[in-house]
Formats: sequence, structure tokens, C-alpha cells
Amino acid sequence: MGIALLVALIYGESDISAFLISGGINLVIGGLIVAATSKAKKDIGKREGFIIVSMVWIVFSFFGSLPYVISGSIPGFTDAFFETMSGFTTTGSSILNDIEALPHGILFWRSITQWLGGMGIIVLSLAILPVFGIGGMQLFMAEVPGPTPDKISPRIKQTAKTLWVIYLTFTVAETLLLWVGGMTFFDSICHSFTTMATGGFSTKQASIAHWPSPFIQYVIIVFMFLAGTNFTLSYFAIKGKFSVAFKDEEFKYYSFFTLGFTALIFIGLLISTEFGVEKAFRDSLFQVITIITTTGYATADYLTWPPVLTMLIFLLFFFGGSAGSTGGGIKIMRIVVLLKNGYYELKRLVHPNAVIPVRFNKHSVDAKIVTNVLAFFIIYFVIFAISTVIFTLIEPDMESSMGAVATCLGNIGPGLGTVGPAENFYHIKPIGKWFLSFLMLLGRLELFTVLVLFSPSFWKG
Amino acid sequence: MGIALLVALIYGESDISAFLISGGINLVIGGLIVAATSKAKKDIGKREGFIIVSMVWIVFSFFGSLPYVISGSIPGFTDAFFETMSGFTTTGSSILNDIEALPHGILFWRSITQWLGGMGIIVLSLAILPVFGIGGMQLFMAEVPGPTPDKISPRIKQTAKTLWVIYLTFTVAETLLLWVGGMTFFDSICHSFTTMATGGFSTKQASIAHWPSPFIQYVIIVFMFLAGTNFTLSYFAIKGKFSVAFKDEEFKYYSFFTLGFTALIFIGLLISTEFGVEKAFRDSLFQVITIITTTGYATADYLTWPPVLTMLIFLLFFFGGSAGSTGGGIKIMRIVVLLKNGYYELKRLVHPNAVIPVRFNKHSVDAKIVTNVLAFFIIYFVIFAISTVIFTLIEPDMESSMGAVATCLGNIGPGLGTVGPAENFYHIKPIGKWFLSFLMLLGRLELFTVLVLFSPSFWKG
Repeated sequence: MGIALLVALIYGESDISAFLISGGINLVIGGLIVAATSKAKKDIGKREGFIIVSMVWIVFSFFGSLPYVISGSIPGFTDAFFETMSGFTTTGSSILNDIEALPHGILFWRSITQWLGGMGIIVLSLAILPVFGIGGMQLFMAEVPGPTPDKISPRIKQTAKTLWVIYLTFTVAETLLLWVGGMTFFDSICHSFTTMATGGFSTKQASIAHWPSPFIQYVIIVFMFLAGTNFTLSYFAIKGKFSVAFKDEEFKYYSFFTLGFTALIFIGLLISTEFGVEKAFRDSLFQVITIITTTGYATADYLTWPPVLTMLIFLLFFFGGSAGSTGGGIKIMRIVVLLKNGYYELKRLVHPNAVIPVRFNKHSVDAKIVTNVLAFFIIYFVIFAISTVIFTLIEPDMESSMGAVATCLGNIGPGLGTVGPAENFYHIKPIGKWFLSFLMLLGRLELFTVLVLFSPSFWKG
Repeated sequence: MGIALLVALIYGESDISAFLISGGINLVIGGLIVAATSKAKKDIGKREGFIIVSMVWIVFSFFGSLPYVISGSIPGFTDAFFETMSGFTTTGSSILNDIEALPHGILFWRSITQWLGGMGIIVLSLAILPVFGIGGMQLFMAEVPGPTPDKISPRIKQTAKTLWVIYLTFTVAETLLLWVGGMTFFDSICHSFTTMATGGFSTKQASIAHWPSPFIQYVIIVFMFLAGTNFTLSYFAIKGKFSVAFKDEEFKYYSFFTLGFTALIFIGLLISTEFGVEKAFRDSLFQVITIITTTGYATADYLTWPPVLTMLIFLLFFFGGSAGSTGGGIKIMRIVVLLKNGYYELKRLVHPNAVIPVRFNKHSVDAKIVTNVLAFFIIYFVIFAISTVIFTLIEPDMESSMGAVATCLGNIGPGLGTVGPAENFYHIKPIGKWFLSFLMLLGRLELFTVLVLFSPSFWKG
């Protein structure tokens, strides 16, 4: 909030006092917590880990919403909490109807919540969750030697530093490129923040469609794709070891799905619209990458496309970025393991006595991990189905309900129907906003982290 | 067709010649096949088994559609094939706009295709598929000693006989009860045929709503529920061993899901309609059972209900009857294993070193079977998702497309939107009808039986 206060001071706008008051509240309460816990023992167990990780996002969203409420930019607490949770979870769903009217400090704070959330999630998914046995990364960790520690230890600090340097480097590079492309410096920083986090908040109501410049849109395409890539691979690539990245099976499938869906939608747009080749290609590539990486920017409204193309986009709601990226959703690694296991089951039927394990990156995958991935998918699907049914009580239309639930659970941003890319979540009833906020948290923390807190065996003994 | 010919002769209607010609064609071609293969070796291997099982439904549907085409009741071959495949797979989706106008022989043939399909599926799921390692029955077979053979042998004949006697007994009992309740004898037989098969074809355009009699509707409710129960359990119950049935875990969950969904919809209907308690209860129970058992009759149009109730019904599209019943879909046994495995995964996270297998009927389930069940679900979901996308090219509306694909893949009958309970499939383009026919076959044969034919390893060596 200190940085946002600086921005507010530079522009000399009405939000200065909001950041002073919110920052003050946070300093006092934070100070009290530090003082109260200074003598508590420092080694935290697994159980505490689960609780802390879940609580961090909730507590951050609570205190992070203060500037919105105090400045009057988002007067209602429900709306402010929704917007902040959408920020920290890098979802990008918004309740704002007139983004351009907000002061610069608030816009900057809104973008930085996503950037911090993205940072947090990289460390969480690469360093902390695997220790709990959660997340798509167990697979990757087993195969690639690299900056991924195998226990909560001082090494996390080292890993975190390395990854943050990459994250920061990408952010700076994108800022400069967007600036060169014609964005204001302020908009460039804000969009780099929300691109690298695969967040999707924009400083404009029209999202990236505000900038028709192909250069700007391609720059964002490239950085969204990077943000949806495992950051460990970027680390190797930056160190010159490109072969590690290009040999990685998840990266191959990630590229394959991206290009495959783009090709299908590109052909569809060429047939059904008057677009030129470049425009059709750019629109399809942008929309595919924004959804598969769970960013959520828009340069086109896919709800106005022919239904089959809209359905292709909706299918992408159930993909998500790579493990170890800032992308949310089910994630490519899991999708690949699921599809492979399904296909191998056919082989197993033909050769019932053969042992046919799922292979990933040329190693056979431990059966326990396969069961975990399968369980993740089932739970994801069950939560999606039940939440959609419940949500029709709030938004009585199947498409909008499915879209809202899928986009929040997958940390994407726009949905279908009344919450499509040209709309927002302002009109959703308060109870619905709380419900969706919970889904964002569930999705962001890979379900298990949160759900385990509801399991009786967690609290026993 | 001989029996349908008899019916046609009794009523002396225009369809007599159609059955004479179709029957003749079948006799000649069947005779030629028998003659040509009389000297072929009799022991069939697994590979031949897969091919035969898939081919039987296609060949039957081809020759079974002849009476419709020849009699002019369904002039187009695509429509006739769709209706016949819908019959033999016990789906119940129809293209007929004026069912009452059809001659009695044709109506009888339409019902008997479902009854035969139901018979076929019991034998297939209880006796043949488990030998291939397919179907939800491996679980059940491992636990309950009973008329389930463990290899393709003369014992299949014995099993088949026992089960057919039960099937026949239930059919006769339902026929008598419906007759007593005021249906004509002809309608009683036809509906008993399509109830026991969980098929759903009716002799009336309005389906069971044609008979407002609560007695008739409750009789059908009871027999739909029985038809969706594992027939081996009915065998034990008839022999007086009720405890086997009531201790069976799948039966418990089947009853639980049925009552649970009924309770939710019952409350919803009480709140949102002017219905009395009995009418609200009967409508909810009937619609829940018709969908969970994949029968597909209608006494109410669930699309006119509040959206949340429609969504609850749509959720039931992904349940299905018990393993070893005539019901289609994913099936209760698989749903239970999936949910348990998901829940146990949370336990496994808390106790990473404990071995926590999925338990069913008090025994731990072999990991191979769990993987098979999980693979089945993933493949089911992938087929559903991709088919829905493809189908929006044919029916450009997401809800209708999802409904049509889910109902045909699950062998249910009615869908959503333009293919709801008050509509039919007449207006679907021919290519769409072929596509849906294929989905019916896929669903009916538990996916793997058909998909394995497309697997390269099946044809190798």
C-alpha cells in the first residue's frame, strides 16, 4: 500500500487519505500480531501450514479491500472484498462499471494485488504445496533437478529469490515494450503486473480492446504465454538451457493445445466473419491464450462468435496454465495425465496382464500421483457441478451460472451469458459474490489446501 | 418381428406386409450367415468378443429399422435407424411427432426393441463385459457370490436363464398392475416392456402424462426403480435373501440419491407451484426416478420448473442406474467409488504414510479397478465435452446441445432446450441423428467396448 500511496501522491488525487488510513490500520494490526507472536515457536508443522496458507488469502483480501471502501471507489464491503479476492487470487472478475473514473492510486493498488498474488502463488506452487503433497508439481519435481526444494527449509528463500528475479525481469521487460508500443507508462506498469500474474485486471473498462494496436496486443500475447509457463522452465531458458524447456512434456502439450484451439477458432472466424487473416488470427490467438492461461483480458467478445467457437472457448475454461506458473484452473499437467491414463486404460483392456503405467517426461508416474490427479479432477468437477446448481438460485440461467462458477473456480475472469467479457459481476447478488469469492480461493489453492480444513481427520489427534 | 407380426394380424392393420417383408429379409440374410459360419470354429476369443458386442447393436438397429421404413411409419432411413438404435440401446429419444397415429404392430415392435435391448444389456453387463474387464460389475462380482460366472462358459446360459426369468416375471407383474389400473392391455404390455428396459418409449405422444391416474404412475415408479436395481439383488430378494439386497452399498446409495434429489425437488415444487403435497411428491419422485434410472418417461416438463430444479435434474443425467441393471449412464457404483476416492485423498494428505484404499461393501477395492473407474469417468466427460462442442455446429445453442449429448450418451431419452421432455429429436439434422446414434451405442456399451476398437494396440499382433 506504500507504493500505491506514492502513486496517489504523485497524481495528487483524492485517494491519498484512503491509503494513509488503510496503511495505518494495517501497520497497527500487523504490529500487534508480530508483537504477540514474537515469542511463539518458529517451526510450523504441516497442519499449521494448511491453515496459514488458506488464511493468508482471506486476511489479505479483508485488509486489502480497505482502500476501496475508505476512498469510496467501491463503497460496499461485499463488492470491495470480491474485487480484492479477485485480485489476490489473480482471477480478474470485476464489479467495476466505470474503471476509468477511479483515481490512479486505486487503479495501481488493484493491479498490484494481482502481481503480489501471482508472486505468492509461484512460491506456493513451486516450494510449499509440493511439501504437502498437493499441486501438479510433484510430477515435475520428480523429473527435473532445479530450484525446487524438497522440504520447508531455508532453501525456500533461495528458490523464492530466483523466481522473483525472473518474475520481476519479465514484468520490467513487458512494461518497457508496452510503453514503446504507445501505452502510457502508468498503464504499461499496471498491465505488466496483471499479465505476469495471469490476473486480467485492466485500467480500462474495454480491457485490452481499448488499444487496437496489434503490437501491444502481440506483446501481451507473448507475456501471457510466458506467465502460463512453468517459471522453472523460464529459469532454465534464461540460463541458456533451452533444451530443458523444449523437452518438457507439459510445455509441449501447453503449446499444442494453445495452437490447436487457435487454429480451430481462426478457421471458424475466417468462415463466419469479414475479418482479414491477421485480425482473425490475432483475435483467436489472444482469446485462446487469455483463457487457457486464466488471465482474462479481452480484445473480442467470444459470446458474439458462432456458438461452436464460444463452446471451444468454454472448453478451455477447464484447462488452465502450466503447473508452477501463475495460471490457475485444472492445469495442463493434470489434463495430460488424465488423458494418458484414459488412453492407457484401453491398452490395459487389450493386455490385461501387462503393467502399463502412465509415463510423463519419459519416466513412469507413481500410481499415487495418478490417483491424486484423478481425485483432483473429480473433486473439481463435483464442486463445479454442485456450485452451478446452487448458483442458479442466484443467477437463474444455466449458461450464466456455469460460466460464473467455472471462471471463478478456474481463476479466469470473464464467464458466459450475463458475466461475459463485455459484462461484469456488479449485478450479482451479495450472497452470490461471497460464494464466488470462496470459489476463487478454492481454485487458487488447488482445492485440497482448503478442503482438507473441512475434513474431520485433519482436526483429529 | 414374428410377435409384432402377430399383433399386426390381430389388429388387422396396414403394417402386416411390412413385418412379413422385413421378417423375410431377416430370415434369408440370417440363414445365409448361419450357413456360411456353420463350420467356423466355435470358441471366440476376447478380441472377437469386443467386435461382436459392438456389431450386434449396429446390425440389429439396421435390420430392426426395416419395419418402420417399409410400413411408411418412419419413411426416412436416418430417422428409422435413430429410432431403432434408441430402442435397442434403451435410450428412448424419439423422432415421432404423432405416435398415436401408428399401427399397433409398429408400436409393439418399437416397445419390444427396448425390451430385447434391456435383456441383452443384463446378460452383457452381468456375464460378458466383466470377463473383458469392463463395466461397473467387477466390484460387485468380487464381493457377492451369485449367478455371475467368471468366464465365458456354459454357465452364462444358466445365468442368463435365471435373470431372464426375473425380467419376465417383473414384466408380467407390471403388465397386470397397469391393466388393473386402467390402461388397455396393449398399452400395459408396451409400457412394461419399456419400463423394465429403462427404455422410455411410450405409445402416447404425451408419455405417461397421458394417464393422470396416480396408481398407474406409482406402479411405473416402482418398476422403474426395480429396473434400475442390480438384477442379481432382485434374484436374492426373490429367493428371500432380502439382507443381501439391503446390505449392498450400491443399493443404499442408489436409494439415498433417489430420495435426496426427490426431497430437494419436492421442496422446490412446494415453494414454487400451487401443487398439493401428493402431486408435488409424485411429480418430483417420478421425474427423479425416470432420469436416474435413465428410463426417460415424463409426467411433467422439468424445463418449466424453476432453473435450480431443472439443474438438479440435469445433474442426475450424470448418475445412471445400478451396475447390472438395465439402466445406462455412469452408474451409481462408479459415482460412489469416485466420490469415496476423492474424499479419501483428503485423508491421504493428512496421513501421507497411511495406506487408505477405497472400500466398497466392506472390502477394499483393488487399485486397478479404481483406476479403471476413474478412467471411465474421464473418458465419459471428455466424450461429453467434445461432443457438445461438435454438436453446437448442428444445434447452435449450448443448453440444447449439452442436453442432447448427455441424454444420448447416458441412454436417458429427453434432454434440455429444443430436445426437452415436451419436444423430440425430429428437427435435428440427419448428420446430428447419426452422431447421436453413435453416442447411444458408446454409452450403452460402457464406452470401452466400442473405444477399444479404435485403439491401435487392439489390432496389433
